[in-house]
Amino acid sequence: MKFCSQCGAPVILRVPPGDNRHRHICDVCGVIHYQNPKIVAGCIPEWEGRILLCRRAIEPRYGLWTLPAGFMENGESAVAAAAREALEEANAVVENLRLYGMYSLIHVSQVYLMFRGHLRDGYASPGEESLETQLYAEEEIPWEQLAFTVVHETLRQYFAERRAGAFGVHVGDIIREPDQQFRIHRYP
Amino acid sequence: MKFCSQCGAPVILRVPPGDNRHRHICDVCGVIHYQNPKIVAGCIPEWEGRILLCRRAIEPRYGLWTLPAGFMENGESAVAAAAREALEEANAVVENLRLYGMYSLIHVSQVYLMFRGHLRDGYASPGEESLETQLYAEEEIPWEQLAFTVVHETLRQYFAERRAGAFGVHVGDIIREPDQQFRIHRYP
Repeated sequence: MKFCSQCGAPVILRVPPGDNRHRHICDVCGVIHYQNPKIVAGCIPEWEGRILLCRRAIEPRYGLWTLPAGFMENGESAVAAAAREALEEANAVVENLRLYGMYSLIHVSQVYLMFRGHLRDGYASPGEESLETQLYAEEEIPWEQLAFTVVHETLRQYFAERRAGAFGVHVGDIIREPDQQFRIHRYP
Repeated sequence: MKFCSQCGAPVILRVPPGDNRHRHICDVCGVIHYQNPKIVAGCIPEWEGRILLCRRAIEPRYGLWTLPAGFMENGESAVAAAAREALEEANAVVENLRLYGMYSLIHVSQVYLMFRGHLRDGYASPGEESLETQLYAEEEIPWEQLAFTVVHETLRQYFAERRAGAFGVHVGDIIREPDQQFRIHRYP
């Protein structure tokens, strides 16, 4: 951020009075421009025991597989956002969404809200941001070609709990280490 | 938003190609400025059966009571944000935070992530954004002077479940009706 989005003047990075973090401040019109984490809403759509994955047609991680998920929009609910992303990315109608995981991706300032649910009719086809869509049984999941750590973690936990017969709600932080590897901190 | 925060040129509100929503677009440098919901992280701090509330020293709802909560910052986890807000608003150290509620406030594009937890030592005192802090037993809660619907709903559910002896994780939408009343949609 270099300019004030309200008046167009250059902004300055400074700690405002009473605050303890640097903010982009406009000294012309007085606005403080806060920047906050974004929410990614997604889901684990199941159909007859298989899980819907999408192969990404966009960066980052072009060509790799992911659960349908994307940025929540202003003016919608988190549940609606997760359903909308399944529709946009896979032309899939998901139902009975239940909160399944909440992960903070600290290095990119994102919070993933992952729901579990069911496809209404088993139908899916690639939306604009997907190269292909596929229903995978657990033993068919392309674990080595998953796009994101949070997707890997969500699917791993989902299959383990499905086998055990009880789903929880999971909270974790995904931390990028200095060596660029990801570490997961799970909360009880 | 009137000006591009990257180059300072005026922005135009238009639907970008491949999108279906109006965005603030800069035709000079090409940046699309997305605006997304903000996360409010908070907690229900318990100490010897009583709950810590803060009386707000800031607008909106100056003078009314609330659970410690505030905007999550970039570069932190949701759990850390909830603990930080308790420290900032009530000089209170909270422990053992567990996700308790996730509420979408559609009319203000906010998602509340509410955790339950315990005060480490029972100590609390007003931070800069609080007029006073108080530990309240269930029968002492100032229900008519609570600042926000989401706080009312969270506390109501918390006490009901504490009496029943089992806590769940709750998902809901808080919707402002045309008559300015709030309606809560709860998901199973």
